[in-house]
Amino acid sequence: MTSSRPKVLVIGGGFAGLSAVRGLHGVEADVVLIDRYNHHTFQPLLYQVATAGLASPSIAAPLRHILRDQPNVTVLLGEARSVDLQARQVDIDGVSHRYDYLIVATGSTHAYFGHDEWAQDAPGLKTLEDALAIRARILTAFERAEAAEDAGEREAWLTFLIVGAGATGVELAGTLAEIARHTLKREFRRIDPATAKVLLVEAGPRVLPAFPDSLSIKARQQLERLGVIVRTGLPVTHLDDRGARIGQDSIAARTVLWAAGVAASPVGKTLGVGTDQAGRVRVSAGLSVFGHPEVFVAGDLACLPEESGTIPAIAPAAKQMGRYCARAIRATLASRPIGPFRYRHDGSLATIGRMAAVADFGRLRLSGLLAWWVWLTAHVYFLIGFRNRLVVLIDWAEAYWSYRRGARIIFPSQRAPPGPAKEQLQELQRRAGR
Amino acid sequence: MTSSRPKVLVIGGGFAGLSAVRGLHGVEADVVLIDRYNHHTFQPLLYQVATAGLASPSIAAPLRHILRDQPNVTVLLGEARSVDLQARQVDIDGVSHRYDYLIVATGSTHAYFGHDEWAQDAPGLKTLEDALAIRARILTAFERAEAAEDAGEREAWLTFLIVGAGATGVELAGTLAEIARHTLKREFRRIDPATAKVLLVEAGPRVLPAFPDSLSIKARQQLERLGVIVRTGLPVTHLDDRGARIGQDSIAARTVLWAAGVAASPVGKTLGVGTDQAGRVRVSAGLSVFGHPEVFVAGDLACLPEESGTIPAIAPAAKQMGRYCARAIRATLASRPIGPFRYRHDGSLATIGRMAAVADFGRLRLSGLLAWWVWLTAHVYFLIGFRNRLVVLIDWAEAYWSYRRGARIIFPSQRAPPGPAKEQLQELQRRAGR
Repeated sequence: MTSSRPKVLVIGGGFAGLSAVRGLHGVEADVVLIDRYNHHTFQPLLYQVATAGLASPSIAAPLRHILRDQPNVTVLLGEARSVDLQARQVDIDGVSHRYDYLIVATGSTHAYFGHDEWAQDAPGLKTLEDALAIRARILTAFERAEAAEDAGEREAWLTFLIVGAGATGVELAGTLAEIARHTLKREFRRIDPATAKVLLVEAGPRVLPAFPDSLSIKARQQLERLGVIVRTGLPVTHLDDRGARIGQDSIAARTVLWAAGVAASPVGKTLGVGTDQAGRVRVSAGLSVFGHPEVFVAGDLACLPEESGTIPAIAPAAKQMGRYCARAIRATLASRPIGPFRYRHDGSLATIGRMAAVADFGRLRLSGLLAWWVWLTAHVYFLIGFRNRLVVLIDWAEAYWSYRRGARIIFPSQRAPPGPAKEQLQELQRRAGR
Repeated sequence: MTSSRPKVLVIGGGFAGLSAVRGLHGVEADVVLIDRYNHHTFQPLLYQVATAGLASPSIAAPLRHILRDQPNVTVLLGEARSVDLQARQVDIDGVSHRYDYLIVATGSTHAYFGHDEWAQDAPGLKTLEDALAIRARILTAFERAEAAEDAGEREAWLTFLIVGAGATGVELAGTLAEIARHTLKREFRRIDPATAKVLLVEAGPRVLPAFPDSLSIKARQQLERLGVIVRTGLPVTHLDDRGARIGQDSIAARTVLWAAGVAASPVGKTLGVGTDQAGRVRVSAGLSVFGHPEVFVAGDLACLPEESGTIPAIAPAAKQMGRYCARAIRATLASRPIGPFRYRHDGSLATIGRMAAVADFGRLRLSGLLAWWVWLTAHVYFLIGFRNRLVVLIDWAEAYWSYRRGARIIFPSQRAPPGPAKEQLQELQRRAGR
């Protein structure tokens, strides 16, 4: 490793960080990419892993493998704890790493609006680990319902509450309804999975608030056609391992999934510069931290000035920011000027379920089957790796024809569900000695 | 559920148990299948999951789904703790289940020959959970080697010791050598994965002891061609988190995998009848427990009388025993006699690595490419589910052409490896709060 070349540290191997590293291909610099996972995750399909439609490896690729032909890049497995802007150092698992240029792209995590204690009973969906935990909860709920002796208990296990009707909440609700009504058909002897209730609850006035009104209405219709019960204008006021209070109603639900809020990754705050109320780092129109032109923030963690317009927290925006950061570093190294970051919005897509989706391309608005085809094509196209694309297509084709979901694997160690059975299960697992 | 029909309890959804349940299709009885996992695992390909070649769902299928069209079958998720032959009851997670007929097919687990403390440093490969734990160890070892500052430490992380040269040990060693030499090419910056040492150690005089001498020699040659260092006639005398003592040598290896011994599942002993030294339950030539014609034992757990001949612990034998138990119950219900169980040996197959395998069909003995094609065809054919077959074929085709392995996913929670870094890592994970 030569030390005369500038060192670029990139924290986070998501869409923003990975695009930045790829954009630095061939640059005369030592690039180090740090991530706590060894893989890049295709987040838009996380809900498919959570609902047992896809295996984890189908939507993940090892960062080392993606970057193997970029000799100026070193991949480091570890978690960034804090950034010291003055010393130009990042603390990675207790070890200080110096940088000349820094790109922080650690994304976002779940937000429970001051109720962090809800996290254990209502998991969110941000990583593959989250997806596997949610998969285990969903599949276990049907198992517990089948084993339940009490009718109330059975009903609580067969009630699925999804909080938040953004893209993730809508995807989870639509897919859960399909699983209950079709996938599990004929598999149980004591319960009818089709009687399961899937509730989608939104505090705001409509589902998919980022979409135009007309598409929100279409989305709601499609959800209801799939069997989802949609309730809008109702915030969650209480939540525990027995269920939730939504407005005036108490809902007994053993499975509550959280898709209501996101907060910026905690690394942002350690920069010690201004953040917005979601914890996102305020940056210049050139995505750099004020007073530190060598430090960039990209992706969900970045809060741009108002004149940059509203930038949605979606993969294409993160990619564009990552690529811009790489261009900015290239420009600086070549002593060239560079204009501000400009976000180009190509459109918004949200899938709802089987042949149901909405698409917003400005003047062109689609819903239903056509939107679903657009969604499917786009997501297969942007998946990394030929193998993944092929395998995902096979899985989807099978799910389409037979309603089967190929990844219905859970382990006893994952099975501790919310609810009073928890201690009992843990005791059983302890006795099992594994 | 009618209670007038006899109740058949089947413990274990492996090859034996699942074949028994399938064999009871249409029988006028209530069949209950109990397994601690919700899925049947295709054990012959576990090593592919352990070596990141296949995703878990590719070799597993939900038991409920496999049996959905058998209305006389109820699947129950739970772990059998003990059997009470007199009361005709099985304790499943603390709840007693009555039976009229019982088939015990709980298989085998790892045996450390009186050194149970070795288990944590040398995991074995019996379940999907084992496979994912081994995958994490293997992939983490290369990450630690890349991060190591000390040459000795680096070498220890790059030394992989496989204990036991039966089919599993040979498969693991051959695949590990391929990963080190090919899969990880160009992905690391500080280490050359091709310098990794893969050692296969066997206490007996030769590899694949269940095969004829000539094929053992062929297998060893093929292993050495793939880059595996083979040592026979050397028992492990000590093992800890730093490595192992093999004969007179101390080997510093951070990754030790155990493929040396199996013991019968502990449920067998709770029957309170005779067992052999491996803990297998002694049964009659009709696979029933002496004095209890209503209780059968099938698969790896069964120890047959000498006149039944030697029955290898392989999937085809387990399937045959399972089917026999179903036939025996059918015969009893119809008051028909049934002859003793007869094992039909179709042949033995063991794969070694890329285009390397051995096959023993009695007079016909194959090795190398041809044996490998036979092995591949047989394993794809016997995989459950069309989707799985297709996806596995795609994965293997890709691995064949590009040496890529599509399932290289590890999570921080899996990363605690053997070795003195363990506490440090656990501390990091604790601080990470997940």
